[in-house]
Amino acid sequence: MKSFLSERAKNTGRSAIREVLKYTKRSEVISFAGGLPKPATFPREGLAESAAHQIRENYENSLQYGTTEGVEEFRKEMISWLSQFGLELELENIISTNSSQQAIDLVCKTFLNPGDLIFCGLPTYLGAVQAFSTYQAETVGVPLEKDGMNLEILEEKIKKSKSAGQNPKFIYVIPDFQNPAGVTLSEEKRVKIFDIAEEHDLLIIEDTPYFGVRFSGDFKKPIGTYDESGRVITLASLSKILSSGMRLAVTVGPSELLAELVTMKQSTDLCTSTTTQWIAADWLKNNNLSVHLNELRKHYKENRNVMLEEMDKSFPKDERISWTRPNGGLFIWVTLPEGIDAELVFKKGLESNVAFVPGHHFFVDGGGRNTMRLSYSLLTPERIREGIDRLGKVLEKELSPISQ
Amino acid sequence: MKSFLSERAKNTGRSAIREVLKYTKRSEVISFAGGLPKPATFPREGLAESAAHQIRENYENSLQYGTTEGVEEFRKEMISWLSQFGLELELENIISTNSSQQAIDLVCKTFLNPGDLIFCGLPTYLGAVQAFSTYQAETVGVPLEKDGMNLEILEEKIKKSKSAGQNPKFIYVIPDFQNPAGVTLSEEKRVKIFDIAEEHDLLIIEDTPYFGVRFSGDFKKPIGTYDESGRVITLASLSKILSSGMRLAVTVGPSELLAELVTMKQSTDLCTSTTTQWIAADWLKNNNLSVHLNELRKHYKENRNVMLEEMDKSFPKDERISWTRPNGGLFIWVTLPEGIDAELVFKKGLESNVAFVPGHHFFVDGGGRNTMRLSYSLLTPERIREGIDRLGKVLEKELSPISQ
Repeated sequence: MKSFLSERAKNTGRSAIREVLKYTKRSEVISFAGGLPKPATFPREGLAESAAHQIRENYENSLQYGTTEGVEEFRKEMISWLSQFGLELELENIISTNSSQQAIDLVCKTFLNPGDLIFCGLPTYLGAVQAFSTYQAETVGVPLEKDGMNLEILEEKIKKSKSAGQNPKFIYVIPDFQNPAGVTLSEEKRVKIFDIAEEHDLLIIEDTPYFGVRFSGDFKKPIGTYDESGRVITLASLSKILSSGMRLAVTVGPSELLAELVTMKQSTDLCTSTTTQWIAADWLKNNNLSVHLNELRKHYKENRNVMLEEMDKSFPKDERISWTRPNGGLFIWVTLPEGIDAELVFKKGLESNVAFVPGHHFFVDGGGRNTMRLSYSLLTPERIREGIDRLGKVLEKELSPISQ
Repeated sequence: MKSFLSERAKNTGRSAIREVLKYTKRSEVISFAGGLPKPATFPREGLAESAAHQIRENYENSLQYGTTEGVEEFRKEMISWLSQFGLELELENIISTNSSQQAIDLVCKTFLNPGDLIFCGLPTYLGAVQAFSTYQAETVGVPLEKDGMNLEILEEKIKKSKSAGQNPKFIYVIPDFQNPAGVTLSEEKRVKIFDIAEEHDLLIIEDTPYFGVRFSGDFKKPIGTYDESGRVITLASLSKILSSGMRLAVTVGPSELLAELVTMKQSTDLCTSTTTQWIAADWLKNNNLSVHLNELRKHYKENRNVMLEEMDKSFPKDERISWTRPNGGLFIWVTLPEGIDAELVFKKGLESNVAFVPGHHFFVDGGGRNTMRLSYSLLTPERIREGIDRLGKVLEKELSPISQ
């Protein structure tokens, strides 16, 4: 059978995290591993009403094929919502996709030749890296700092690759509450990363699924708002704020680039579900997404607070261990002392019925062996406390080898 | 901007039919051009109930991410329905996709290298050809006969390509009420096409969206039921029978091949909408799809009857013009006398406010200039009569140049 496979399929493995998650399914395991949102935070009652109404009354559209660009009513609602963040969009600047993952795939399909270079964070979202590798691109990691990517190193690496005769194509950046590291790109760096892309004639793929899950502080303007030359594509997903199951996202950017994505999407799946787009359009028309987000954030904020409080209490009092205190998103990122292998901590954790994702999975350069990603999204406060307590004990042992 | 594009994007154009459809939007035009199903044939009341119920009561699943393979309950319902046609499936033999178009794309992504050969009908479904060209494959056309592909020519072309050192990968076949030609592959040929694939070690992609839209005669067993060696992938879509807007299809085949598709789908979009899968699962559990199909067929059968009756009456009495009398599907295929250009007839038709798709668009070899595809799916009987009457007059003129 292997003889049938394309070169790209031979190069592509399944998500390592999927494999991690297999170990965490036993009910006695308290898992900080997954990154799933909590469905109870989604407006199920309103969505149920919108669904029944749209399928019953608007079946000529909601059960029929639609344009590849997406349902206009849905895109208009999204334009209206996104306008408060500085994005001034016409219909030609926005298309619907089956989640932002599909948008990443379409961007790759449209712009990448084998061997092209993509610059991304160290660490970064694994699903994007998988898509890049499917298109046989090379991924170059750039270390993250507290305010996002280190832009000096980014520029250095771009220059170096150019003088080596390589073909840099785009910068992939998750500007808000980055998965997995939780950091947010500062405004200064948003301006600067655009300037770098401009100078070196690169595209920027701005992927912002956690944009709406902010606990405090002001929203930061997407990099797309600084785009003067048509090189920034912004991916805005509804999977963390309205429903993951509906698989809805919009891709926003210059019409010339979107037109090319649409051509590719046409042969990929003709169109995104009109049923789910009409449900979302109906809900957005009859409800206030910003008000809903205020409710939704409460859950994640409480969970984050409980988790940080418990980590402060139960994790080893060792200055070589540190973790983020994110203002949004679903994750806390832990850095263990150099030389401690989080993969080993993971195995020990499983013995104590607690799980997380060892951070090295998110590093395209093989680094990050001493890092861990902890998600607070799905658990109850009680389970968070219990799980962090278990994990603290495991870390205590691993950090004090003599006491074992 | 063009400098950003991948080689595959440079090679890919938009659907020519889409361009045709642009001309047919004026309300005074009676259009036989599109191939859209009629949403009134979908069970909107039941789907609305299933949607409201699943979103309200099963939100933990229906609004959450799902596995890449698809929602088990949905796949089990499909296994149960497909079993009556001779397909004996386990869960590992079926995955969910966003329509069969996505399945075609995933098959290409998984199995095609640039330059690989695909064998398909002359004519064939344009959306598939677009996907093939996106993956830079070469498409080889094989003439259709009344009972499907000419298998002698198919085998000859396979052998010829092999001796030329080319790499044939799969045969793409639409076995039931083929789009656009309306022909159905005979049982004898189903057995034989499998034998050919077996002998030459090719895959078969069996795409059967019109399977459920049969007016008379017995269902023919899918080619997949003859698969003894794990080389047939069958695409069964719900877009013509339950809803086009939900974008749901299943891909059925040997588990080893499906596992590779799943790996590719993971980085393509993580999973198909769980919301729509749960709605469909709920509807399938509480309703009988076969009973529903009996209702649905009545509409298309009546339209087909009206159309054929009117064509018999209004089309030129010229033995050089012929058309199919399909037992199912949505299309009638017309062959005009040699030398008559259907593209010119199309232009003259527009002047008389009637439209169709010139058949050459469906030919990968540039042939079929004297063919036309007429769809009877969406119009009322009155509009069909009026449109065929207009088209008959146009043809009358075009076939008798002296009388002009």
